[in-house]
Amino acid sequence: MSTDLAATLDLDTVQDRIETVLADFLRRSPAGIPSQKGGVGELTHALADFVLAPGKRIRPLLCVLGWHAAGGGDGEESLWRVAASLEVFHAFALIHDDIIDSSPTRRGRPSMHRAFAARHRTRPDADAFGVHAAILLGDLALVCSDALMNSAGLSKRQRRTVLPLVDAMRGEVLLGQHLDLLATGRPTGDVDEAMAITRLKTAKYTIERPLHLGAALAGADRDLLAMCSAYALPLGEAFQLRDDLLGVFGDPALTGKPVLEDLRSGKATVLMALAIRRVTPEQRRTLDALVGRADLGEEDAVRIRRILQHTGARDTVESMIIERYERALAALDTDLLAPPIAAALRKIAARAVIRTA
Amino acid sequence: MSTDLAATLDLDTVQDRIETVLADFLRRSPAGIPSQKGGVGELTHALADFVLAPGKRIRPLLCVLGWHAAGGGDGEESLWRVAASLEVFHAFALIHDDIIDSSPTRRGRPSMHRAFAARHRTRPDADAFGVHAAILLGDLALVCSDALMNSAGLSKRQRRTVLPLVDAMRGEVLLGQHLDLLATGRPTGDVDEAMAITRLKTAKYTIERPLHLGAALAGADRDLLAMCSAYALPLGEAFQLRDDLLGVFGDPALTGKPVLEDLRSGKATVLMALAIRRVTPEQRRTLDALVGRADLGEEDAVRIRRILQHTGARDTVESMIIERYERALAALDTDLLAPPIAAALRKIAARAVIRTA
Repeated sequence: MSTDLAATLDLDTVQDRIETVLADFLRRSPAGIPSQKGGVGELTHALADFVLAPGKRIRPLLCVLGWHAAGGGDGEESLWRVAASLEVFHAFALIHDDIIDSSPTRRGRPSMHRAFAARHRTRPDADAFGVHAAILLGDLALVCSDALMNSAGLSKRQRRTVLPLVDAMRGEVLLGQHLDLLATGRPTGDVDEAMAITRLKTAKYTIERPLHLGAALAGADRDLLAMCSAYALPLGEAFQLRDDLLGVFGDPALTGKPVLEDLRSGKATVLMALAIRRVTPEQRRTLDALVGRADLGEEDAVRIRRILQHTGARDTVESMIIERYERALAALDTDLLAPPIAAALRKIAARAVIRTA
Repeated sequence: MSTDLAATLDLDTVQDRIETVLADFLRRSPAGIPSQKGGVGELTHALADFVLAPGKRIRPLLCVLGWHAAGGGDGEESLWRVAASLEVFHAFALIHDDIIDSSPTRRGRPSMHRAFAARHRTRPDADAFGVHAAILLGDLALVCSDALMNSAGLSKRQRRTVLPLVDAMRGEVLLGQHLDLLATGRPTGDVDEAMAITRLKTAKYTIERPLHLGAALAGADRDLLAMCSAYALPLGEAFQLRDDLLGVFGDPALTGKPVLEDLRSGKATVLMALAIRRVTPEQRRTLDALVGRADLGEEDAVRIRRILQHTGARDTVESMIIERYERALAALDTDLLAPPIAAALRKIAARAVIRTA
């Protein structure tokens, strides 16, 4: 039994199945959109290309693991559709986020607004057109994630427990993005505020809610959901803190994002907040002069990185990641979880925290 | 019985009930968003203000009428929530549409991206910030329309018939907006293309789908749905054709939109397509030089309006509206509808077609 479960929970196998569900859904006509007519195909094809590009699929994986953690049961078909819909929802979030952050690239390819602008570059308004088409594409992704969820064939009990979690997850991530938007461009030393954004945008959205969703589908009780939170929240914070470090110190060839982007936009990260609390007046003047400048260059970045290191902010963030990672792992030491599930959740935790992209 | 139904179907009474459902939902915390914390209240309050501003509520009204047309039944509470969710969805569509069209106003007030920019005008990036916050606000509206739909307590039968209609409606309107976006800025004489956009963006989205949704909630059969389409599609086309005329010839004090907007953006309307097919070479040069210019002034507009009139395009569109309006009314002459319902649908038709705003 336990060996069977271990085979079932092989992450590559789970991920393959998610890819199949996504491809089947997106290559037909999602949300009843005929995919042949006029300019229509452009949106549906762009969405399929975007979603089916290689990704970590961390949210669907966690949803599947949450389901098994709660004992699984009948209705596995519903599980796969709900899990896949999280990935389509995430496509929505990324497409709009890239517009808001003016990100030129995503996963090493042009971001969607840039891709649309390039494809329509003969238009005099190509750049604005690209943004506007990408707004619609993000909207379509959100609508398609609903269509996938709506077609999951949930039972009445499942609907009552799962849909409020879906609604809350969506509200939270939008809220987190709004707080992020308000804070971007003028980072302060407010570590608590930066951490609050991290919690909403990432810890709950990326880790806790997907795990809860899967668990709730299988009828998880309160204790199991609390255990999931004890694992998910510190892990989610660690995940975002790693992102923040990669955004400044990462290798753009691996992250697929220009390394100067977070600095140019003036992201209010925990990393930056910690540094700001510890700078000398002279370092503060340097940060104020450089962070948030759209024309910030590599030499400026070197100066900022030096400050992030000399103030110890970088090391502190690394320690915070390790501390949270260990807390997440400790939450898995419980009788509530079958050993193969705990093992799979440990693997996910390592992937989330120890990475270069 | 028939008198009771007539009282039930009084459009003002129906609309009051819709306002109440909307206000109750939006003034609590939609989608589980706490409405007190930090910058959070800004989004939820903006959404409530936007949705609760006076509006025609044509989509919820049609949904309610569709339900009665199919005989109503138990579960009226579900009906009101579904009907209200159409209005919240429409808020999403309008907020993103105003960004895409760069509309400065909506219903006589600043559009949402302008309102956010004004509220944050001390930011150096106030204009971009306004657009980005409005993208998130539109997203929140879409998420909230789902939360409202998810809380409607639909039965399994209702879910199976209604949700695919919701998904299709959403896909269609996005598709229509994408085709509109592709065509805007370079209007041609392609009347068919302009009419195809009209059908997707308005005829199906504004009239047919809301009516079908309500009817399907009450278990409508195929014949009734076909009758609804026979009324809805011509009426929806007439509604959009009226909008196109108001966009060029309307009184901005009544429409709440600057009258030059459609001309400045170069909207590919049926009106414009008809004119382009009939212009003299000299008139064509005038249109090419003026339509789509962001700095187009009132004198230019006068010249364009003169061409729209001299070519007979304006009169043709008026005739098309009347012909479609009559076709919609003729569809109501059927035994399938109780007389008070047919009467209410006639009133809606008149409101949609004979209006100044």
